Amino acid sequence: MSDIDFGHVPLVKVTRGDAVESVHYGAIAVVDSRGEVQGRAGSPEATAFLRSAAKPFQALPLLASGAADHFGISRSELAVIISSHSGEAMHLDAVRSVLRKAHLKEADLRCGAHPPFYRRAATALEQSGRRPTVLHNNCSGKHAGMLALAKFWRAPLRGYLAPSHAVQGAILKVLSIYTGATEAAILGGVDGCSAPTFALSLREVARGYARLVDPHFGSRDELEAAGRVVDAMRAHPAMVGGTGRLDSALMRSVGRSFIAKIGAEGFYGMAYRDGSRGIGIALKIADGNGDRARTTATVELLQQLGLLAPRKAETVLLSQGLPGLRNVRGRIVGRVAPLFRLA
Amino acid sequence: MSDIDFGHVPLVKVTRGDAVESVHYGAIAVVDSRGEVQGRAGSPEATAFLRSAAKPFQALPLLASGAADHFGISRSELAVIISSHSGEAMHLDAVRSVLRKAHLKEADLRCGAHPPFYRRAATALEQSGRRPTVLHNNCSGKHAGMLALAKFWRAPLRGYLAPSHAVQGAILKVLSIYTGATEAAILGGVDGCSAPTFALSLREVARGYARLVDPHFGSRDELEAAGRVVDAMRAHPAMVGGTGRLDSALMRSVGRSFIAKIGAEGFYGMAYRDGSRGIGIALKIADGNGDRARTTATVELLQQLGLLAPRKAETVLLSQGLPGLRNVRGRIVGRVAPLFRLA
Repeated sequence: MSDIDFGHVPLVKVTRGDAVESVHYGAIAVVDSRGEVQGRAGSPEATAFLRSAAKPFQALPLLASGAADHFGISRSELAVIISSHSGEAMHLDAVRSVLRKAHLKEADLRCGAHPPFYRRAATALEQSGRRPTVLHNNCSGKHAGMLALAKFWRAPLRGYLAPSHAVQGAILKVLSIYTGATEAAILGGVDGCSAPTFALSLREVARGYARLVDPHFGSRDELEAAGRVVDAMRAHPAMVGGTGRLDSALMRSVGRSFIAKIGAEGFYGMAYRDGSRGIGIALKIADGNGDRARTTATVELLQQLGLLAPRKAETVLLSQGLPGLRNVRGRIVGRVAPLFRLA
Repeated sequence: MSDIDFGHVPLVKVTRGDAVESVHYGAIAVVDSRGEVQGRAGSPEATAFLRSAAKPFQALPLLASGAADHFGISRSELAVIISSHSGEAMHLDAVRSVLRKAHLKEADLRCGAHPPFYRRAATALEQSGRRPTVLHNNCSGKHAGMLALAKFWRAPLRGYLAPSHAVQGAILKVLSIYTGATEAAILGGVDGCSAPTFALSLREVARGYARLVDPHFGSRDELEAAGRVVDAMRAHPAMVGGTGRLDSALMRSVGRSFIAKIGAEGFYGMAYRDGSRGIGIALKIADGNGDRARTTATVELLQQLGLLAPRKAETVLLSQGLPGLRNVRGRIVGRVAPLFRLA
């Protein structure tokens, strides 16, 4: 069975002293909005779940439907709806505001609770003796957005996570339009936050991302909705991630309408403008590593694409505790380094 | 650069809903004490650092030198010297006892401090307001053993972690004897606990493990030392790991003088008796995953070798929170499953 070809290649190595200790496999597709592969490492047909990288698409029906405007959702609130946030005060405030504007209650959110990603917020919460709530869940913005759309459509709030619910149907449809995959071809699963999630080829996901920033793709409503998603992410990078988070750091460092959205299990969706074209990127670390491997591969990729200068790349890596590998006493004992060149 | 062949193959898959979400690559070598490959997945020549899987070898000079007997080190204390322990009270007590018997101080240990692996112990320590000490470091037993040998040899205690120190020289020599690799061919690095660590091919590591349980390998002193290592690990599996730990669970579940020792970054060294032969196993998860991937691959491997019945395998997996993958609300949304068959 070992000879199944998943289309992955070595993307990142971890060295210790004189030898390579670990290797992270994966695949990358760089694709234009017509679906033409512009660059790759491994196979563009490798399959991956988008996980939270679906959030920019999941926000589109909220905008295209008119629900966001109806409830007066602001640009920074839109950013938190698209976010995998760190559970900092600014994120919780924004989610609370969305709930208030759409006449929703915290208890309507069915994402489950986990401690804030931001360590200081997690420690403060623990020391206060309070338990994490659904608001702290990194997906609480997305869930608030889904519920706001259900409210706007007068659809039932309970059951908003069922694939058969109107909100989820609209999301699947928009994902199909952007990625070019038929709805039937999009494989499904349940996400960490209990929402439907989607598996596609990297080529298809990258095409979807390309179309988000393509000034020519889609109807007028679709163009406006995608433009607002990109605009919100670019204007409020800290809302999309949080203090010290990679998404936030990269959107601050890269121009050309660049957007970046992580997904769990080592996934990354990105897009940027190349002249008047949209270019999308889908990256999957096969083993799901969302720290050293994804960060190292992404920063290398953006350098190879000419989007990130060496100096900025170094700053981003350092902000993520890379490339050095430290031991218990804080001594640097190894190094994380990229292994691929885009074909 | 992507076409470097590290000798890894897909060992474990993680599925979610309708699709494979993640894949863990790696390699496995099953080798007899002459170095003949008896089974493999991927290449037996794949390189890996032993990390804590070197501990059974690192304890040999302490025994062969007579130091362990001189200080009256007990069998359970020997087990903690070989351990990557969870920082539970029994482990701390055993390490303290070794230090006391060898007239050493806690401050002599240069491993650095980290919180106990055992969650309850870590929480209790945190709630007490005390900070982790070097004793809580999972390698504190190993360090106490190294210092005891330095003391016995009247070698300097400071600098006991330098590759040029007599204790480290003796360890490298014994590793060369057991693995069949020349000292010059053993690649070096600094471990998480600041001790020297070693990179070898999986075939060489597996041969070393095979020789630990081989009743015919080595001089009388070597045989006796190796026999005591195996005996200590088998008699005190909880000392080698701790509550809920894989090493401990497997040594309780598998007969035939089976020993198991994890190493960081997804490494695993194991050995068992096949009639009057010693058989050694070296397993490396390429990406360093020491939880779902290593556990799943190991349990599958032991089943394929006929060492673990399906029912016991299931019990071990369940004890490690596998094979189901749960989301934030505790719902099972995926599954971790092996992908290889030993060749």
